[in-house]
Amino acid sequence: MQFIAYSRKTQYSIQLIYIHGFTLKPSKDVIDVSWGDKHRGGVQPLTFVRQVLAACLYPQLVHSYKLPEDVRQRVQSLLGACVGGSVGSYTPSGGISYIQCSVSNFISRRDGGVPSSPENIFMTSGSQRSIMHVLKLLVHNQASLPTGVLTAVPTYSSFKMMLQRLGAAIVPYYLDEEQGWAMEVEELRRALQASKGVCNPVALYVINPGNPTGHVQSRKCIEEVIRFAAEERLFLMADEVYQESVFGEGCEFVSYKKVLSEMGPPLSHTVKLASFHSASKGFMGECGLRGGYVELVNLDPTVMRYAYTIFSTDICAPVTGQLALELMANPPRPGDPSYPTQSIQAMLVHNMNWVPEVLNNIPGISCQPMMGGAFVFPRLYLPQAATEKAKVVGMQPDLWYCKRLLEEAGVCVGPGCQYGQKEGTHHIRYNPLSLSLATVLKRLKDFHLHFLKEFS
Amino acid sequence: MQFIAYSRKTQYSIQLIYIHGFTLKPSKDVIDVSWGDKHRGGVQPLTFVRQVLAACLYPQLVHSYKLPEDVRQRVQSLLGACVGGSVGSYTPSGGISYIQCSVSNFISRRDGGVPSSPENIFMTSGSQRSIMHVLKLLVHNQASLPTGVLTAVPTYSSFKMMLQRLGAAIVPYYLDEEQGWAMEVEELRRALQASKGVCNPVALYVINPGNPTGHVQSRKCIEEVIRFAAEERLFLMADEVYQESVFGEGCEFVSYKKVLSEMGPPLSHTVKLASFHSASKGFMGECGLRGGYVELVNLDPTVMRYAYTIFSTDICAPVTGQLALELMANPPRPGDPSYPTQSIQAMLVHNMNWVPEVLNNIPGISCQPMMGGAFVFPRLYLPQAATEKAKVVGMQPDLWYCKRLLEEAGVCVGPGCQYGQKEGTHHIRYNPLSLSLATVLKRLKDFHLHFLKEFS
Repeated sequence: MQFIAYSRKTQYSIQLIYIHGFTLKPSKDVIDVSWGDKHRGGVQPLTFVRQVLAACLYPQLVHSYKLPEDVRQRVQSLLGACVGGSVGSYTPSGGISYIQCSVSNFISRRDGGVPSSPENIFMTSGSQRSIMHVLKLLVHNQASLPTGVLTAVPTYSSFKMMLQRLGAAIVPYYLDEEQGWAMEVEELRRALQASKGVCNPVALYVINPGNPTGHVQSRKCIEEVIRFAAEERLFLMADEVYQESVFGEGCEFVSYKKVLSEMGPPLSHTVKLASFHSASKGFMGECGLRGGYVELVNLDPTVMRYAYTIFSTDICAPVTGQLALELMANPPRPGDPSYPTQSIQAMLVHNMNWVPEVLNNIPGISCQPMMGGAFVFPRLYLPQAATEKAKVVGMQPDLWYCKRLLEEAGVCVGPGCQYGQKEGTHHIRYNPLSLSLATVLKRLKDFHLHFLKEFS
Repeated sequence: MQFIAYSRKTQYSIQLIYIHGFTLKPSKDVIDVSWGDKHRGGVQPLTFVRQVLAACLYPQLVHSYKLPEDVRQRVQSLLGACVGGSVGSYTPSGGISYIQCSVSNFISRRDGGVPSSPENIFMTSGSQRSIMHVLKLLVHNQASLPTGVLTAVPTYSSFKMMLQRLGAAIVPYYLDEEQGWAMEVEELRRALQASKGVCNPVALYVINPGNPTGHVQSRKCIEEVIRFAAEERLFLMADEVYQESVFGEGCEFVSYKKVLSEMGPPLSHTVKLASFHSASKGFMGECGLRGGYVELVNLDPTVMRYAYTIFSTDICAPVTGQLALELMANPPRPGDPSYPTQSIQAMLVHNMNWVPEVLNNIPGISCQPMMGGAFVFPRLYLPQAATEKAKVVGMQPDLWYCKRLLEEAGVCVGPGCQYGQKEGTHHIRYNPLSLSLATVLKRLKDFHLHFLKEFS
């Protein structure tokens, strides 16, 4: 069965095969760059992180294996925080309280001293679970109009799937591709206006740095967005999982929490904000451990109590994911034996600059500069004959392009239609942080030129 | 703040404090036996399991640390099955295919050769996530009548919370306490009849061995239940997470899948069944790693496709949880260096026999014999003056009893009202697999006698 045969080659392409019925030429070696998954791309995990986790799982290592002193100490602190001294015990639904404290200290340090309370931190099996739980707080199914959530176009697909699953309405606002995928308040206003009578918009979802766009918002933009949310009484969902992945020249990550706090009262005490982060992204890339958190800001105590019951339906987040969050929040400092940890920053910066340069030199492809995040989202200018052919086979043009790219060139990328895009435009999304990037770019270029020729 | 102050003592009592506003006497050392969590109770994790997990996280251990040969081999197989050779990579939504195969082989062996297909196995962050996803397959919110699910009284509370969250109706069927909490088909029939016009019953949820009851179903009972489900076209949800925890004399775990298969066509090809299992229970007790799975049987291919999209909303289950499932499914065999693993079976059998004996000798408490599972659910005969006093303070009598037991004797147990019970009866639930069991029983007895005296 096709489904099984390729399972060891590439996992996302399985999903393509499974859902869309794609077939692969068995002779072709597949490179899957459709995921924002560092270890999949060949990046090695951090030694400090893995040593601590290994010794938390098998504490005998602390005494019988040569480990740096800071690893030993961290293991002892973390195991001391686990009930029964074991990572095999359940934790409170919000997470291990010691780790909630670490995370809130990390947030304060990151935000230049803005206070953060451990009891506002909830850890989940990946940040998407946190997002889902916050949406459950906001979405009311019984109301006459569906609950609306302002959502960027493009946005990664699983966020939209979550809204659909909860019966919420997507209120689309378009990012400005020509301005490097910037977010603009006039467009938010237009989107909100257009939703009147269709749904009841209660929240604004922002992902910064962007996925799939790689855009990084300026402080000025964030201030405007916060003011807009305050005026329209929208709950702000700030997905900040790529906060460590900023590499554009002159770009800097500033959190919504920090900006909100620095805007002072009354906004700083009234705008409701959920900020999400994860151990899957950033320097660590520990996707498989499933560790994410949300910080809830300015919520009413009654709502917090309700939030607690919602988060408790999962019983607790996986402990290894929680530990990974602690190590992310509290990495080795200068002077510690495990500092500096290996850095993938140089490779990131190199690839992120290189990719748009290569892509912009291929006819029929344009790519905005990458400022952060984990993906490029280049635009494809497909010949009319190709889009017509796609229509004949019953597929979106860029999905069909991706199918052929996978089948013929062995490169697996995501089609723009999965993320949303302006009518009549086509894109692909992929992760340039792969050790095979040179091969990917070569295959993509060769395939694309061949494709253009076929339909010119 | 009370919430923080006690966080290191006991985690469930935090929830009691948080939700019900309980206060503890700070001088009192709390023993929390409200959870079915072995490591919390002081049971040590299995060396084989932890060695494999540690070396999967930090593969250098394979070459630089003395590990048994079967541990090394297992680590190599498991890492070979992870994308990029790292447990830090995402996996397919159903789980790592190699582990799906291990689990389905385990099911076949357990069931005496009944076939099982890897593609019917979905792994999740704990078995409750699997249950939630299956419920999402079954519950239709848009219908004129709510979807009904036949649910035992008593049942552990988070299952009922899941139904409520999905807007499904609980169709209660009562277990027969006097018959050791047996499940009876006439009662199922009564419950189904009573639900007519109130909801649209589509599924029957069974937990065997029972939680909180500790009852183990006979093959004859299972056959009757399957026949009933077939007649009434109910989807069977068989929660079998305690399948390894059977210790009553003459008791044996037989899976619904095995019985269904052995009943032959047409039933074996038509009754729709979901069977759940977990790494949290049984000999392993790895609750914190969050590894559960469901096997779906006799589902239509279109429904399977839809199931795949539902399970994919979580992206994937935590990899360490998936690895734990593999080790559960495929433990060391006779002759392997890591065989036999340590066994807690003797302690289990001892405690499970001892507890009812002690409880049945306390006036005003009766306890059915324990056949399996992780909990005892003794009945309390509370004096009328006590139930009236509880009414005055606005609490269910057994919740109020638990509050006082926690505050005055430092023992944290669950109140029967949380699980459901016949009107006018009262119970408590607790896990007797604790190294502090003798202290728990002594404190409970002293408190109970004092309580009876106060209200006699």
